[in-house]
Amino acid sequence: MIEVICNDRLGKKVRVKCNPDDTIGVLKLLVAAQTGTKAEKIVLKKWYTIYKDHITLEDYEIHDGMSLEMWVNVPDAEMQRERGNLADARVAIGGDAGDTSCGGNQAARLARIIANMSSAQAPHARIRVGVLGATGMVGQRFIQLLAAHPQFELVAVGASERSAGKRYGDAATWRLDTPMPAAAAALPVRACDPAGWADAGVRVVFSALDAAAAGPAELAFARAGAAVFSNAKNYRMHPRVPLVVPLANADHLAAIALQRSAAVAPAVVADPAPIDLAADITLPPGAALVANANCSTTGLVVALRPLVDAFGPLSRVAVVTMQAVSGAGYPGVPSLDILGNVVPFISGEEEKLEEEAAKILGGVDVGVAAGSLFTPAPALRVSASCNRVAVIDGHTESVFVEFARRPPPSIDEIKHALGSYVSEAQRLGVHSAPAQAIVVTETKDRPQPRLDVNTGAGFSVVVGRVRPCNLFDVKFTLLSHNTVLGAAGSSIMNAEIALAKGLL
Amino acid sequence: MIEVICNDRLGKKVRVKCNPDDTIGVLKLLVAAQTGTKAEKIVLKKWYTIYKDHITLEDYEIHDGMSLEMWVNVPDAEMQRERGNLADARVAIGGDAGDTSCGGNQAARLARIIANMSSAQAPHARIRVGVLGATGMVGQRFIQLLAAHPQFELVAVGASERSAGKRYGDAATWRLDTPMPAAAAALPVRACDPAGWADAGVRVVFSALDAAAAGPAELAFARAGAAVFSNAKNYRMHPRVPLVVPLANADHLAAIALQRSAAVAPAVVADPAPIDLAADITLPPGAALVANANCSTTGLVVALRPLVDAFGPLSRVAVVTMQAVSGAGYPGVPSLDILGNVVPFISGEEEKLEEEAAKILGGVDVGVAAGSLFTPAPALRVSASCNRVAVIDGHTESVFVEFARRPPPSIDEIKHALGSYVSEAQRLGVHSAPAQAIVVTETKDRPQPRLDVNTGAGFSVVVGRVRPCNLFDVKFTLLSHNTVLGAAGSSIMNAEIALAKGLL
Amino acid sequence: MIEVICNDRLGKKVRVKCNPDDTIGVLKLLVAAQTGTKAEKIVLKKWYTIYKDHITLEDYEIHDGMSLEMWVNVPDAEMQRERGNLADARVAIGGDAGDTSCGGNQAARLARIIANMSSAQAPHARIRVGVLGATGMVGQRFIQLLAAHPQFELVAVGASERSAGKRYGDAATWRLDTPMPAAAAALPVRACDPAGWADAGVRVVFSALDAAAAGPAELAFARAGAAVFSNAKNYRMHPRVPLVVPLANADHLAAIALQRSAAVAPAVVADPAPIDLAADITLPPGAALVANANCSTTGLVVALRPLVDAFGPLSRVAVVTMQAVSGAGYPGVPSLDILGNVVPFISGEEEKLEEEAAKILGGVDVGVAAGSLFTPAPALRVSASCNRVAVIDGHTESVFVEFARRPPPSIDEIKHALGSYVSEAQRLGVHSAPAQAIVVTETKDRPQPRLDVNTGAGFSVVVGRVRPCNLFDVKFTLLSHNTVLGAAGSSIMNAEIALAKGLL
Amino acid sequence: MIEVICNDRLGKKVRVKCNPDDTIGVLKLLVAAQTGTKAEKIVLKKWYTIYKDHITLEDYEIHDGMSLEMWVNVPDAEMQRERGNLADARVAIGGDAGDTSCGGNQAARLARIIANMSSAQAPHARIRVGVLGATGMVGQRFIQLLAAHPQFELVAVGASERSAGKRYGDAATWRLDTPMPAAAAALPVRACDPAGWADAGVRVVFSALDAAAAGPAELAFARAGAAVFSNAKNYRMHPRVPLVVPLANADHLAAIALQRSAAVAPAVVADPAPIDLAADITLPPGAALVANANCSTTGLVVALRPLVDAFGPLSRVAVVTMQAVSGAGYPGVPSLDILGNVVPFISGEEEKLEEEAAKILGGVDVGVAAGSLFTPAPALRVSASCNRVAVIDGHTESVFVEFARRPPPSIDEIKHALGSYVSEAQRLGVHSAPAQAIVVTETKDRPQPRLDVNTGAGFSVVVGRVRPCNLFDVKFTLLSHNTVLGAAGSSIMNAEIALAKGLL
Repeated sequence: MIEVICNDRLGKKVRVKCNPDDTIGVLKLLVAAQTGTKAEKIVLKKWYTIYKDHITLEDYEIHDGMSLEMWVNVPDAEMQRERGNLADARVAIGGDAGDTSCGGNQAARLARIIANMSSAQAPHARIRVGVLGATGMVGQRFIQLLAAHPQFELVAVGASERSAGKRYGDAATWRLDTPMPAAAAALPVRACDPAGWADAGVRVVFSALDAAAAGPAELAFARAGAAVFSNAKNYRMHPRVPLVVPLANADHLAAIALQRSAAVAPAVVADPAPIDLAADITLPPGAALVANANCSTTGLVVALRPLVDAFGPLSRVAVVTMQAVSGAGYPGVPSLDILGNVVPFISGEEEKLEEEAAKILGGVDVGVAAGSLFTPAPALRVSASCNRVAVIDGHTESVFVEFARRPPPSIDEIKHALGSYVSEAQRLGVHSAPAQAIVVTETKDRPQPRLDVNTGAGFSVVVGRVRPCNLFDVKFTLLSHNTVLGAAGSSIMNAEIALAKGLL
Repeated sequence: MIEVICNDRLGKKVRVKCNPDDTIGVLKLLVAAQTGTKAEKIVLKKWYTIYKDHITLEDYEIHDGMSLEMWVNVPDAEMQRERGNLADARVAIGGDAGDTSCGGNQAARLARIIANMSSAQAPHARIRVGVLGATGMVGQRFIQLLAAHPQFELVAVGASERSAGKRYGDAATWRLDTPMPAAAAALPVRACDPAGWADAGVRVVFSALDAAAAGPAELAFARAGAAVFSNAKNYRMHPRVPLVVPLANADHLAAIALQRSAAVAPAVVADPAPIDLAADITLPPGAALVANANCSTTGLVVALRPLVDAFGPLSRVAVVTMQAVSGAGYPGVPSLDILGNVVPFISGEEEKLEEEAAKILGGVDVGVAAGSLFTPAPALRVSASCNRVAVIDGHTESVFVEFARRPPPSIDEIKHALGSYVSEAQRLGVHSAPAQAIVVTETKDRPQPRLDVNTGAGFSVVVGRVRPCNLFDVKFTLLSHNTVLGAAGSSIMNAEIALAKGLL
Repeated sequence: MIEVICNDRLGKKVRVKCNPDDTIGVLKLLVAAQTGTKAEKIVLKKWYTIYKDHITLEDYEIHDGMSLEMWVNVPDAEMQRERGNLADARVAIGGDAGDTSCGGNQAARLARIIANMSSAQAPHARIRVGVLGATGMVGQRFIQLLAAHPQFELVAVGASERSAGKRYGDAATWRLDTPMPAAAAALPVRACDPAGWADAGVRVVFSALDAAAAGPAELAFARAGAAVFSNAKNYRMHPRVPLVVPLANADHLAAIALQRSAAVAPAVVADPAPIDLAADITLPPGAALVANANCSTTGLVVALRPLVDAFGPLSRVAVVTMQAVSGAGYPGVPSLDILGNVVPFISGEEEKLEEEAAKILGGVDVGVAAGSLFTPAPALRVSASCNRVAVIDGHTESVFVEFARRPPPSIDEIKHALGSYVSEAQRLGVHSAPAQAIVVTETKDRPQPRLDVNTGAGFSVVVGRVRPCNLFDVKFTLLSHNTVLGAAGSSIMNAEIALAKGLL
Repeated sequence: MIEVICNDRLGKKVRVKCNPDDTIGVLKLLVAAQTGTKAEKIVLKKWYTIYKDHITLEDYEIHDGMSLEMWVNVPDAEMQRERGNLADARVAIGGDAGDTSCGGNQAARLARIIANMSSAQAPHARIRVGVLGATGMVGQRFIQLLAAHPQFELVAVGASERSAGKRYGDAATWRLDTPMPAAAAALPVRACDPAGWADAGVRVVFSALDAAAAGPAELAFARAGAAVFSNAKNYRMHPRVPLVVPLANADHLAAIALQRSAAVAPAVVADPAPIDLAADITLPPGAALVANANCSTTGLVVALRPLVDAFGPLSRVAVVTMQAVSGAGYPGVPSLDILGNVVPFISGEEEKLEEEAAKILGGVDVGVAAGSLFTPAPALRVSASCNRVAVIDGHTESVFVEFARRPPPSIDEIKHALGSYVSEAQRLGVHSAPAQAIVVTETKDRPQPRLDVNTGAGFSVVVGRVRPCNLFDVKFTLLSHNTVLGAAGSSIMNAEIALAKGLL
């Protein structure tokens, strides 16, 4: 039996007696029992680590007498509804808070906790989802990340006509270093046309389609009522499509509401030759069309967001990328082009970096009924130079930043802003949100893709070498996982956030 | 609530009602409650997957009505002791088996189960262990694998004089792609001399020392009473040191008993200039000196073991290796030597492969009081050609095998023998044992190090391309993780097996 | 002025006075003047180096008093004709041999030499040649190797319909590390159909076509009268097509004569659906169809040839290859498959190695009018295991060899046979023949593709680690350049040899 | 017989009849005969190609009727002396210009030409040179580049005490992909102390020493009378040592004269603990101490030089490098650090880039007797971010440039300035000068190290992707060979230039 101290940010301490082999989930229930705060809302942290529910204290090396930071996670959007629940929770388990914390009879204590847990985690159905472009590299990453998702259940996969009709396990040549999930392998591959998806009953569709196919297919699914979260570039710059990097501008998801118009039935919409940026995005209730950013943009804007938040607008950003081959899909980059080589060009990549960053770091105005919902970051100019290197996963970027404000923040202030950044996805506690959106390293030769790409399970951005610059205000190196956070993971986390905000 | 059917090998079925979010551990308790078999002894499998206790049914995609294979794991060595326990267990939970399986009151049911689980898993202290040569590549792998070990607690690390006195976190430049465990980082580095280890109280010492240092240091620790499990080559061919690949010849561990002589006090032994193969291995009670094999040997003998078991002695084995750079440690192979290159030579490697295989696949005779305890595999001749390739982790080997028996087994018989092999480590259910010792793949271009090296968390050997040969009876390609199964992992699993057999 | 001594193999010495900045060509003329041997027939060597005509003595670091080996190159096939020429040459320059060698007036001496050289090297037209499949990797290598060829003039290139009509410089994306030859860049790309090649006037056609296209196209060109030298696999095993590795079995080129039948006019032949191995190879005068071997076969048989020559038939050969990505063409191997990886499978490669070696090392019987002209090497069994590694150019092979003869030759005898091997191509002195067909290295970790692939400009095979074997009689490692000697270079050298033998 | 037209820049045409197998050298003699310009001063070009003397017209694919550009190369420094020679040359061969060009008797014509050539190229002795630090990677490159040098004869090599006394062939593990030159292999290795070099008689010493050893050793050799050309960093920023990139600021070599003081005998100088930047650089007659720049600086300043020349001072330059592993020497970068990886840090590299560029692009004032001879480029600020990538040879750099002048030059003007740049080394026609200092490519994904690093035999800088920038005036990518132009090649070319200018 050990004692752990949980400190909230107001200075309140909760002392809890527990066993080293208790899980964090059990610990939260014990805290909940003492405080009346619902267990699900409690976030326990230490430095950069957000503790996960299913891990034991022992595994986290939480010892007797150790202090943890306790946060209470109350998403604004759900605030109203929560108020009632919190009261209920207090009633349900408030009575025996005292003896729960004193250890008492262990079996009885756990029985109570588990009874509480069971009711708290009533097995409600997961949302049925599908993946378009499921056989490619990004598609495979979607399949992998959805395999054990607590909220989404993969029930349908779409690919090219050539694959349609086969089982997914036969149609896809799996290129990831974990086995293909068995449930996915058994799914029949469908064509990427909503007409054949009626029986699947999907509410959410993730798209890993190539740009050549994504335009009409994604629009068709959205008009048929699905919430489409797309990794394709087609609609990223559309004035009515939010371009969302989940760790950077989740607030733009509010635009989903504007995409829907109860007055317009989907069947009425006709768009025989949809031109991507001019497409009429008027969707039925429940539908949505959300884009995530290009992989090299994603890492960059996650690092820039806290700088803007803390120090105001940026004026100039130069970035040179060293990008992994997985970003080009499969077969993608020929080995003859990249073994022992650097290719100083990636088609369209520099333009994407230069234009997407301004939209993402800009504002959203959901009060606007017509025209663009988004205003680009004012004054921001970005220049990019993109290179392909012999790395499997992980885009490394050398970044130079100048702030609008004079004098600029100090290097230490910048490091602090980066390291202490907590994104909305984290505050909402969505499943894919990493413990830290940005991990700042002081090791002089890091981040490195081979060693750091899986930080936060591929959902964190690692920033290193934050240092002064002769020309700009600061320069640093960042690394992000280009097919997790930079592609499929962004789409999924965007959907999680939309769900948490009640937008789905 | 779903129902799962567990079939034992005698045709008996146990039907269990449970929840999708129950863990396998809970399921075993429910089975135990119906059958009277102690939960810890139950192994649940499906095809090649051995289900792990802490994973939920849902995560394993175990659905309503699904059948699992149920094995009862009763190590021979512990058979006698078990008989009493089983009776006890039956008494303890037999009474309410009926209502347990019928679902009843969920909270009460779980409370009972957990009460039982708690008593069954009384938090007894882990064995205190140390690592010699802890700062190198293999040493780091030891640190990583021991970080959350259920039976071993890392309390001491040794390295060169240069590092001694520093904290491990400062002395080691961490080269693995997971973070350095915080507990290890805090340990002070000691010199590799048992004189300074008295306060550490370690019973087991793992050695990742270089051959240049391993000889006297390992012997000194063993003579001081430690059970030494070494990855160094020094004592591998010693006539009184078992050379053990845990998935191939765990029976050789029986030789540990012969290493100890109660009549000889450690202080009396003097061996001023120990010559490795002539060293006097007479150790005090509790001590041991166990070697594991060279990394390229390890993968090979795991694949050969079931062939010998099933079809009798082998006569000729040719093997060409394509070995990863991590096998050479850090800094190890210069990048100028391996980028876009193959180096057709690894010093001493071919000799090790050729001589170690015969000892490992040979016999152990613990009835022998003097002379060699081991008899090499008769008639076996091995020829190796070793190459270094531009791979980080994972040795690939092209293998050609001829059996002594005529006619030889068919290709299908060989595949079956490989795929159905269950090693003693698995039967004992030791912590590091993989679900499958050998995974046989039918995919024509596998195994590949990039995709398959982490199969079984790096503890499985993957065999592919099993096919006829114009010269030998069969040829195939195998892959094993050279620093997990091929180095630190073997040492640790050897210790686990020795512990399970009551030899520590 | 320095003096150089040229020793022939019969112990005769010729002392020549010359200047350090004289070329080898000039030195040969001076030798010719003293000896009466025609300059073109003189080969000057030192150790393994065959001196080239256009290089100066200074550049070769030939100093005063240095001895060179002098060989006289008289191809058997031309022996008869040469006899007359030699007499003529002796008459022409014999008279002033004395004062030529004593230095005399330098300008006058050189004028005489050059006058002689000019008449000896009358600017006769080069043979007009074309390349089929010119845009691919092997096609590009053909273009590169033909760019400055003394006997062949590239005048036409063929590729797929998609490229036809463009300039070669626009149609091909050049992937070699030397610039695209300007003359080739200017050529129009033709379809691979002899109908459109009438104006090109090519006598020799080199084919780098894919197997899918090579069958009918190559036959059509040969039936239209061209001598086709093909790198494609289609006709390699055809009973009337010689499969020639120029450094191993140039004698098989004699089969060309049997392919021609004056009685059959090309227009008469109809073969509407030619099946490669059953095709009727009856060609008009001047035509030929010659295949070279698979790239991995090529290096192997060059190393085996001198062993057969010296020690008689081989009985068993096992070979494990580690092959470069350039062998798969462009785009070929995806980078995701090979970065940090080994792929243990190359489609069809093991079969080719196993069957081609026997044909190449077997006999040719030009006395046979019908049926196969070739008899496979008796008793030879080959087993191959083929792997792809992250290397751009250069196939490395681990080879195990058993001789039929007992006792087998010693390791030293084997090394000597390999190192002293002189192929027919070298004896004929054809343009692409390397100074050494096989370079034997004693450096323990060589050959390595990065360091050794360009030995002999990519035309030599490098053999290292020749050592005893526990199972076979010898094992060694070899390296050959897979797109030079292993593909385009073989085709070109085959044509050179055929030309030197008067077969074109 | 073909006719070639040589056009000078004033519109004058010279028509010359010649044979395809004539060399360019012969062609120049024929031109000289018609024009009276000395043959050695004639430069013949076509587009970017400067034709070399020993290559034939045929090999250059110079056809009948083709026009070449003719330049006359008259280095300023030698202008005065040339005037007399030119007059002489005209007298010597002017008389028969008429019939020389008309073809006449070929043998007689060539005899005359060669007689002329012989006297023009009197075989004078090469300068004896040595290499310090000869066993390392840069040292090996020195050995390779000096192997067949027309002006320098390698007679001595120095290395660490450990190697001293061995033959070079035994002391050095050769890591280049051409064989070790036999003459170098035979040299005894000396310690790096001039005391033991008396018998070598070297006038020029090239230093590839590590910074740890270079400081005192280089100074000792210079004070002993040698002209030291160093690749080490120690004296690069010394106020009296020229830091010379031969294709960028050869004019700084004029500072050599200032390093010498006839009044100071070398024995008098005492500098017991020379601190590199404060060392007293007062050298005896004939001696010199010249540094070349860091490898990543070298490529950059070659590209910046013509921009400064054409458009005036630069204000801001940002550069991100992707550097090859050969820059770190051998063993250098461990393979575990770079396989499939990027390392975003190279110790000291960014500082070197930022400070060296300003000295190189700045001025030299040989009128200054004391203090610094060099004035840094005014206003220039440089910011660098340096990365290591998995490339053997060739540093790739993403460069952003801003000019001081407003408005800046257009992209086309910048391309033209880069592509038409002719460095002083080229104008002097020194041996190692490439045909083009800068090759500008319009291929969108070039330069690439694998394909382009050997452009100009590793002495050219390749610039591609010259394009507008949102933040600076222009951005582009450059590639240079880091151990040829970027290290040993620069030292050698600096010595060649100093020799051509009469400074040695």
